[in-house]
Amino acid sequence: SEVKKIAVIAGDGIGPEVVAEAEKVLKRTEELFGYKFELEHGLFGGIAIDERGTPLPQDTLEMCRKADAVLLGAVGGPKWDNNSKELRPETGLLGIRKALGLFSNIRPAVVFDCLKDASTLKPEVLEGTDLIVVRELTGGIYFGEKFRRQGAHGEEAVDTCVYNVTEIERIVRQAFEVAQKRSKRLASVDKANVLETSRLWRETVNRIAPEYADVEVEHVLVDNCAMQLLRRPSSFDVIVTENMFGDILSDEAAMLTGSIGMLSSASLGEGSFGLYEPVHGSAPDIAGQGISNPIATILSVALMFRLTFGYEEAAAAIEKAVKNVLDAGHRTGDIAVDKSKAIGTTAMGDLIVAAI
Amino acid sequence: SEVKKIAVIAGDGIGPEVVAEAEKVLKRTEELFGYKFELEHGLFGGIAIDERGTPLPQDTLEMCRKADAVLLGAVGGPKWDNNSKELRPETGLLGIRKALGLFSNIRPAVVFDCLKDASTLKPEVLEGTDLIVVRELTGGIYFGEKFRRQGAHGEEAVDTCVYNVTEIERIVRQAFEVAQKRSKRLASVDKANVLETSRLWRETVNRIAPEYADVEVEHVLVDNCAMQLLRRPSSFDVIVTENMFGDILSDEAAMLTGSIGMLSSASLGEGSFGLYEPVHGSAPDIAGQGISNPIATILSVALMFRLTFGYEEAAAAIEKAVKNVLDAGHRTGDIAVDKSKAIGTTAMGDLIVAAI
Ligand SMILES: CC(C)[C@H](C(=O)O)[C@@H](O)C(=O)O
Ligand SMILES: CC(C)[C@H](C(=O)O)[C@@H](O)C(=O)O
Repeated sequence: SEVKKIAVIAGDGIGPEVVAEAEKVLKRTEELFGYKFELEHGLFGGIAIDERGTPLPQDTLEMCRKADAVLLGAVGGPKWDNNSKELRPETGLLGIRKALGLFSNIRPAVVFDCLKDASTLKPEVLEGTDLIVVRELTGGIYFGEKFRRQGAHGEEAVDTCVYNVTEIERIVRQAFEVAQKRSKRLASVDKANVLETSRLWRETVNRIAPEYADVEVEHVLVDNCAMQLLRRPSSFDVIVTENMFGDILSDEAAMLTGSIGMLSSASLGEGSFGLYEPVHGSAPDIAGQGISNPIATILSVALMFRLTFGYEEAAAAIEKAVKNVLDAGHRTGDIAVDKSKAIGTTAMGDLIVAAI
Repeated sequence: SEVKKIAVIAGDGIGPEVVAEAEKVLKRTEELFGYKFELEHGLFGGIAIDERGTPLPQDTLEMCRKADAVLLGAVGGPKWDNNSKELRPETGLLGIRKALGLFSNIRPAVVFDCLKDASTLKPEVLEGTDLIVVRELTGGIYFGEKFRRQGAHGEEAVDTCVYNVTEIERIVRQAFEVAQKRSKRLASVDKANVLETSRLWRETVNRIAPEYADVEVEHVLVDNCAMQLLRRPSSFDVIVTENMFGDILSDEAAMLTGSIGMLSSASLGEGSFGLYEPVHGSAPDIAGQGISNPIATILSVALMFRLTFGYEEAAAAIEKAVKNVLDAGHRTGDIAVDKSKAIGTTAMGDLIVAAI
């Protein structure tokens, strides 16, 4: 079969450990399914700041541009937290999203059976929770003009939130399409009672909704959504929202499942290209100890197979393997009830590879 | 004793019902404690749109300006949801906050004993949760320039988020002072890894923190805070944040207590003047049936006594009365386990009045 180029960016903290296990999975699927992957590795985030003086070196970006998909571990850590803006890992993250045109961040929030009790929500409330947050990723207040100035009341800071109708339309259409493949319910989240960008957002949703007549649309104000996610999480199917609200709500949604250490995400643009990464961060506190959980990263590979390569069979095989290993009782420390029986990162990776 | 002028704005939906009960409480405290209140009533919100063509009539604003405190029921409802901006209840709410200089919104999120099980969170996670969100209320993206324009990609909407150092300092100082009277822990929430306003916010917190050396300060990113509120709600004491983040997080915090129908809030400016209102909204679905819960509004009176008038004894007496009535098993429908035994709005009000 055709060679697929995958750009691998391990990043910081536990990033390299979990990505190493995901690479084993890639290799195993080559053997089993006859795929051919060409992996290239690049520096990104804190480690790139240290070694190259910038969080997003030009050659890393070029490597991603030439690839069919990107696998990202995690970036950031306290070491770089007090750096100036240009020398922060987050700046690299925002830069790569914009440069690669990844306008859509898709984050499934599901409850894993083995982690049913890990949530702080009551099991009966959580029952059946399986939602996807579709977050706009290259617009809004993240990318608008930002500056300082002197005003009548001292120093002033300004952030600008801008959305044009084309940006809104493409993310909303994508969310409608995701909803059509699921329960056909879309919650569009905005703050239309206060923000002009939200009013344009809502108008746009209402304008294109008739084209997706099979999808039931609900408009939810962002403050209300933060509440409803707690009150009735299982009633949501697909949630679409702008960049800043999506940042907050997708983290809230991920946390309430109790499964945050197992959740993967995709950042997509036009076409099939995508960047895949675990939802959890770089976890600097446990980095280098070989105890991190590689499952979210391995499941990010499954998501890459499904959404970018169309390798549905292998995607399902990886997900099945993860399920089997968990069902057999194997756990890394973060998800183990009996921590003394927890296994390490590579042991977990090996078990999953063997189970595919 | 001195006459206190209270501007009463019943508003829409269940607003008039719950405010009527709070007025009975005011009257009862006049008899018991010798206070003198002069109540004036004004139109505000949807009803003002209907009767006067504007959500915030000038005479209502004047009445508030001349008062020592404002008691507000709730505003809004589906009837006005599709109106143009100038004819929406929310516009009145933003207008009154700005006009009265109410830059600080204080929302306690506590768990009421009788509602311990009403939360969707596990009781052991919720145990001990007692936090206050201090939200900046007259700045940020709510009040910055907003407009539409034609851009290269079609129609564009713009919202501007502006904060000056004076605005940040006054709300942060107030939060420090609140924290000093409590557990001396302050979580300042921002998005300093992305927003310029957040960077100015964080610099300002760090600059004045040494003046409140007894308070332990933690900086939390807004997305992380949305998660931590779920994971460890009881670890928070005072949370201070900007307007938009505060809107989202205070609703999340209120909902996770399970006690949202019982929570009161204060909006304060410089000096002792304040506007007091229940956290719950106008609940148009149950308006006019006499079944709404007046407790949050009655507790808003207690908050007014404490924060604006310094009537600590009466404030405590009201809170005690509410507790006694609940301990005796009386419940309105929203908080009743056995709905068939629920009592109505006026019955609840009467019981509390009698218990003071
Ligand atoms: C690190 C930060 C800039 C980033 C964001 O806010 O987008 C992160 O929180 C995320 O959600 O990927
Ligand atoms: C109605 C709306 C404008 C308002 C706000 O966003 O401030 C409300 O949500 C609140 O929190 O008081």
